Amino acid sequence: MATINDIAAKLGVSKSTVSKGLNNATDISEEMRKKILETAVELGYSNKRLMNREKKLCIIIENMDYNTPNQFGHDIILGFKQMAEPDGWTVDVIPIDKEFQRNIPYGVFMMQNGYLGAFILGFSLIDPWMPEFKSSKIPAVLYDNYISNNPHIASVGCDCQEGFDQIIKHLLDFGHRKIGLISGPLESYILKARYSAYINALSKYNLEINEDYIGLGYYVTDSTKEHVKRMYDLGITAIICSHDVRAISAITECRDKGLRIPEDISIVGFDDLPMTAYTDPPLTTVRQDRTALGRAGYYAMSCLQNDLPIGSVMLRAPLIVRGSTGPARKTD
Amino acid sequence: MATINDIAAKLGVSKSTVSKGLNNATDISEEMRKKILETAVELGYSNKRLMNREKKLCIIIENMDYNTPNQFGHDIILGFKQMAEPDGWTVDVIPIDKEFQRNIPYGVFMMQNGYLGAFILGFSLIDPWMPEFKSSKIPAVLYDNYISNNPHIASVGCDCQEGFDQIIKHLLDFGHRKIGLISGPLESYILKARYSAYINALSKYNLEINEDYIGLGYYVTDSTKEHVKRMYDLGITAIICSHDVRAISAITECRDKGLRIPEDISIVGFDDLPMTAYTDPPLTTVRQDRTALGRAGYYAMSCLQNDLPIGSVMLRAPLIVRGSTGPARKTD
Repeated sequence: MATINDIAAKLGVSKSTVSKGLNNATDISEEMRKKILETAVELGYSNKRLMNREKKLCIIIENMDYNTPNQFGHDIILGFKQMAEPDGWTVDVIPIDKEFQRNIPYGVFMMQNGYLGAFILGFSLIDPWMPEFKSSKIPAVLYDNYISNNPHIASVGCDCQEGFDQIIKHLLDFGHRKIGLISGPLESYILKARYSAYINALSKYNLEINEDYIGLGYYVTDSTKEHVKRMYDLGITAIICSHDVRAISAITECRDKGLRIPEDISIVGFDDLPMTAYTDPPLTTVRQDRTALGRAGYYAMSCLQNDLPIGSVMLRAPLIVRGSTGPARKTD
Repeated sequence: MATINDIAAKLGVSKSTVSKGLNNATDISEEMRKKILETAVELGYSNKRLMNREKKLCIIIENMDYNTPNQFGHDIILGFKQMAEPDGWTVDVIPIDKEFQRNIPYGVFMMQNGYLGAFILGFSLIDPWMPEFKSSKIPAVLYDNYISNNPHIASVGCDCQEGFDQIIKHLLDFGHRKIGLISGPLESYILKARYSAYINALSKYNLEINEDYIGLGYYVTDSTKEHVKRMYDLGITAIICSHDVRAISAITECRDKGLRIPEDISIVGFDDLPMTAYTDPPLTTVRQDRTALGRAGYYAMSCLQNDLPIGSVMLRAPLIVRGSTGPARKTD
């Protein structure tokens, strides 16, 4: 375990300067303070004693709306705070972007602000801070991301395999046999996971896996325009969209092309965004209970704060059946 | 929600008789009481009001030693109680067998004893109570078992995929390419999961999957006798055993056949039983932290008690490298 002496030796400054840097004293330069903190993180210096003065956690959020009720991030944050605050934690919400991450290493950011743990929302695989989680010793809970082998990091999410198993079973009961998937590109942990869940579920129920039944694309509207009618013409009778926003776009695309839902084609989403109950027809989808995700995130954080090395907490993901799915149309 | 009236109507007895049955009064026959409880469970009657008089949980344990420190069940129970008792729970440990399960339905047993939740250890897929977990509304946490879609049941265990990924990577670093698996029959959830984890890990690292590299057998000694030398003759340079007891048997079998560990063949276990540090050579294995499993079991129970529908909590499973693995021998 590195000491203040080690940091001082490495930087060639006095012990008292290092101490000032770690304690946010104002009589050293900002540049020197940053150097001290970076070196402290690099050497694995633990300032638990310093940090323990205050029970502070942060929720770091990117690519996710959270300002008004019912927005995805809002309800997750609400659930987390509902559990954390009665336990005596202060919870700060920190919206960031990639530029922010490039300017300061994660460990330095956490140490500088005295946070004892972070709940990370909305990160993709290419976020600059992601590699740091492989070795970080600060407890962090990642929503819909997974870091192998680091006992200080846990993952929380909904069990998308269970979600896809239910979707496929539901569609089978309606006589569907050719089932397509429209998804964003596989650049995030969760889209990869849902893609695998689709393949596994087809395989489990002995349905055909065919690359023509899969459509990936970055732009939502473009990819539904490209794939919905194409899949219909292939004899596909049901399309699963990897998230609700794409499913809603698919509904619009069906209307444009004169395809009736569910008579001509069934559409299924994933997430259960509030608006999906009010689409025409209302969308069959898999529910991610957002408040429960936040609460589960706090349970995971409690485990890590108590040195219990959990890797993941998975929530149930129930299928919500609405009007966008029905019996398969007759095909040749 | 069923009421006392519904139970009375179904059985054709008075409301006060039903009430006596639910309250463990002594002035009705044991047979009638059992009938009342069974009907209550069947109709989904919730006696939360009655049960809430006392915060009682039980740990139901089968096929697992737990009486002395370091035994598998002992440490799991210890971890669970360490968390539950300070929270005000009384925790009873109930050793059972299949006969016990056949004599009384799970729901009746729980209701009769006023337990608000159960932590289930050591069950196999063929245990008589297993089907009840599909629809039970009483919070239960199952160690190394998984029940789909029931929001009242959660699973806790070590992440065996992460464990096998680490084993295969470790063996690859030592130059092993043909890697065998010796396992019990795939009659339990966890042996199935480890079998899949072995296949997935080989596939992930582009290694050959070959049914001749796999040996399944109920009797530990018989199966190591049958498979260890056979695998060696096939050019296999490392054998993974699905649990430590088999790995220890494999070490004995190697000695009997004059095979040196690790020079001629590497052996890997799974579980990190205390004795594995003292075998000759000491065993490389994946650690299941037993006390942590018990603590994680209680975290999962807390979630369920608070209506948070988690499906699983997975612990990290670190690889413990000891002397039973080394560089692969030269093969043709």
